[in-house]
Amino acid sequence: MEVILHLQQIINEYILQLESRHQQEDLEQEEQQHRQNISCYLSNRGIDISALYQSNFQDFIAYQGDKYHEDKNTLGFINLGLSENKLCIDLLTERLSQSDMNYIDGDLLQYPDWRGHAFLREEVAQFLTYYCKAPDLLDPENVVFLNSSLSVFLTLTMVLCDPGDAFLIPTSFYSGFTLTSRLYSKVELIHVHLQSKITEVDTQPFQLIVDKLEKALLEAKFKGKKVRGLVLFNPNNSLGNIDTLDSLKEYLEFAKRHNLHVIIDETYMLSEFRASIPFHSVLNMKSLPDYNRTHVIWGTSKSLGISGFRFGTLYTHNKEVVSAVGAFGFLHSITGITQHKLCRLLQDREWIDNVYLPTNRSRMQVAHRYITNKLKTMKVRLLSHGSGLYIWVNLKEYLDPCTFEEEQLLYRRFLDNKLLLAPGKAYMCKEPGWFRLTFTDKPFHLKVAMQRFSEALTTKKQNWIEKQLEDALVESVSSPSTRRSSSSSSSSSSPSSSLSFSSSSFVNVDTSHF
Amino acid sequence: MEVILHLQQIINEYILQLESRHQQEDLEQEEQQHRQNISCYLSNRGIDISALYQSNFQDFIAYQGDKYHEDKNTLGFINLGLSENKLCIDLLTERLSQSDMNYIDGDLLQYPDWRGHAFLREEVAQFLTYYCKAPDLLDPENVVFLNSSLSVFLTLTMVLCDPGDAFLIPTSFYSGFTLTSRLYSKVELIHVHLQSKITEVDTQPFQLIVDKLEKALLEAKFKGKKVRGLVLFNPNNSLGNIDTLDSLKEYLEFAKRHNLHVIIDETYMLSEFRASIPFHSVLNMKSLPDYNRTHVIWGTSKSLGISGFRFGTLYTHNKEVVSAVGAFGFLHSITGITQHKLCRLLQDREWIDNVYLPTNRSRMQVAHRYITNKLKTMKVRLLSHGSGLYIWVNLKEYLDPCTFEEEQLLYRRFLDNKLLLAPGKAYMCKEPGWFRLTFTDKPFHLKVAMQRFSEALTTKKQNWIEKQLEDALVESVSSPSTRRSSSSSSSSSSPSSSLSFSSSSFVNVDTSHF
Repeated sequence: MEVILHLQQIINEYILQLESRHQQEDLEQEEQQHRQNISCYLSNRGIDISALYQSNFQDFIAYQGDKYHEDKNTLGFINLGLSENKLCIDLLTERLSQSDMNYIDGDLLQYPDWRGHAFLREEVAQFLTYYCKAPDLLDPENVVFLNSSLSVFLTLTMVLCDPGDAFLIPTSFYSGFTLTSRLYSKVELIHVHLQSKITEVDTQPFQLIVDKLEKALLEAKFKGKKVRGLVLFNPNNSLGNIDTLDSLKEYLEFAKRHNLHVIIDETYMLSEFRASIPFHSVLNMKSLPDYNRTHVIWGTSKSLGISGFRFGTLYTHNKEVVSAVGAFGFLHSITGITQHKLCRLLQDREWIDNVYLPTNRSRMQVAHRYITNKLKTMKVRLLSHGSGLYIWVNLKEYLDPCTFEEEQLLYRRFLDNKLLLAPGKAYMCKEPGWFRLTFTDKPFHLKVAMQRFSEALTTKKQNWIEKQLEDALVESVSSPSTRRSSSSSSSSSSPSSSLSFSSSSFVNVDTSHF
Repeated sequence: MEVILHLQQIINEYILQLESRHQQEDLEQEEQQHRQNISCYLSNRGIDISALYQSNFQDFIAYQGDKYHEDKNTLGFINLGLSENKLCIDLLTERLSQSDMNYIDGDLLQYPDWRGHAFLREEVAQFLTYYCKAPDLLDPENVVFLNSSLSVFLTLTMVLCDPGDAFLIPTSFYSGFTLTSRLYSKVELIHVHLQSKITEVDTQPFQLIVDKLEKALLEAKFKGKKVRGLVLFNPNNSLGNIDTLDSLKEYLEFAKRHNLHVIIDETYMLSEFRASIPFHSVLNMKSLPDYNRTHVIWGTSKSLGISGFRFGTLYTHNKEVVSAVGAFGFLHSITGITQHKLCRLLQDREWIDNVYLPTNRSRMQVAHRYITNKLKTMKVRLLSHGSGLYIWVNLKEYLDPCTFEEEQLLYRRFLDNKLLLAPGKAYMCKEPGWFRLTFTDKPFHLKVAMQRFSEALTTKKQNWIEKQLEDALVESVSSPSTRRSSSSSSSSSSPSSSLSFSSSSFVNVDTSHF
């Protein structure tokens, strides 16, 4: 029995590798399409960058040029693929318009300290001390901020890795991390694939367990790779789950055992909308397993819903890392006047605690309830854990066969209906059919979006029925020889049956959050 | 005679190569000093970056932490090594505090188009059309802006070059360009060394002539280098001179002949303070020799004296380049609210034309006159062409011997006197002894700075006299054999004699600007 289980495991891992390679090849093929018109002006690297950008951002570009507006552009795109919180723009606009924001002095107009102005580094340290519940006051000298969390991630990998070195990274994760690596740092991100199927007691779908990290590390070492660290996301971007303090400790202990750096991205901190699931920052820990190899990223894009501010910060006890990351300030810094506004905003605890956070949470709850109810009506399954700006939606039932090609076709169908969602493949999820759906948009946008979502799925179903009928028709009039040749397109099982909610599905749906 | 001249040229070039290598070795040695404490946390790349940063910015960091203030810190650093215009902070603060600046809407708080918000790209196109006197309206679709001119340069080299490819770049130039290449793009910048000695009729000291470009290109090709383009600076950063329209055309024609890209940095546009020397943007030309290979950089740091805004823009007719550079927006973009403020500022031609530019020019003239008069009193020679924020000062006379080691010692002496200047070596000037001195600081700062400058030179001179006396004393009491061994330190000519202004000097001083 043990041998069979072992064999099964080997086969599973082999399939996983094949799938992963296939997925990678798909992405490369897409880029190849964008690369076809060889330029006589760009370098090979330039051509690659351009293709990479097009394949990653072409729909975002289309959305930028044709945004939905309830009066002016009712046929424009609604973007639930972008992780933005638009629920409190009114509050933020009001707060940012107050007179204390508009202070200007000479220092703000001149070159700053490349790590960021001292006044804002101090405020960031105080802010993180307070909201991460740090046992001791955090030190402003451990802060470096740049123009986005992604810039902080990039520069960390630049100074912790040599080209070709690797970091372990659990899937799913935001594709921007891969992009930064391909553009600049040339660090390999070794995917630690998580799965929806629950294989361990007391775990959830897609949960990271240390055993998986150990295996991934061993395998990478066996292949001769130089693994420098581990990337963690807490709260997680795509799942929206929060690591327990125990899990966090286990990951950090694993890293310490192997002298690995940990880059932990806590950008989604303060986006918890359910009090029952508390967030723990690693900065909350009384003692970090490895002070000098634990590097925290945070930013205001998600926590405060101001992605247009382009602010990301590093907090690390390692002075060498602070200094080395600070070297990038002259290429990734942010405007002085923005630094002043951010300082005032972070300083205003009364407004954050009594106005912004409670209002934001309550609006998030309403929006989340609205979307999950709609999905429930459509019998669409989902995962949502009470944090993040999105719901991880399972649309496997609408793929026939259940492949990434079909996922892409479904994505395109949403796009035809002027709705952007984030497909799991872009997040390197290993299972086709998952989509990340942002619910923190304006109520009216959500209403129209869900109509479009529903229409896309209905059309998909109708098309399938029509195709089934056509195939049946062809079969009834054709000769046995032609019948055989057309059989491939109708060989799969009926989606009409798979559309019905199956209680025996292997996915353990978090039904409490419907 | 011809053979002798040819031999002389070969010898000169060989010496130049040796000097250049020596200079490079010096820089590497400095970095090596910073690299001595090998880290167990950073990668080799991280250690290099850290050392590179320290060797480039350590004095800037010291300045940031200890700035001169007339009341609070009279012993702090004054920085005339930084190219900043502090003469119109009052005007800018007043304009940026007006109510139209403080507009905020949802779009400004959200992710922008990565090329920059359309409203600002439109304004930039109009602004450049007007101030560059473009024959036709410039197209907003040809604009991409990022968070500094340097980021634009970096991303251009990223998409026009593969790692190891090269760009020709005339010296002297700002070391940030080398830094970007070492950090990210891995593009070789092949220095085209210019010299103070005038060798061609109708030219000025340090003037770029096409013959030098042709030679540098030929030599690079001979060495198997793949030269992708040429970097030009107009107005020039360090000399402050402006290219004539004829010279510009010659450079562009040279590039076209060899299918080279031209990156032309016009960041110092609008910094002309003498009407007699007009600036010509390449965008002013009726027809560019090679539309698709001419890429213009501009920013507000120097033209409008707001380096803290971190704004640099690209203008190119090449849509492929626009698109590829745009790919970097997600790592080099600027805050939405800053984009709004910049738009309002650039839009306000009345304020720029009737308030900012005339006031700035008049203040620049006063400051320039003050500094040049002071330098004249001290019999210090200089080059200044009526543009840029600095004067290119010749302190060769204070070096004994005239080496980069001595230049560094003199630089340190200024630093001891709490005065920062930019040494020529940092700008890859091939001749020791040149310093870039920024004159666009507050009047009182300039006064204190010039006192410190004078004191440093006086101490230098006194030290030399004391050393001469000591040597003479040692010589008088020592035996003939020891006398010989100590002779090397006093072998050079007396600085006291070299301090006197020599009309036969090979440097053609722009005395009209004293």
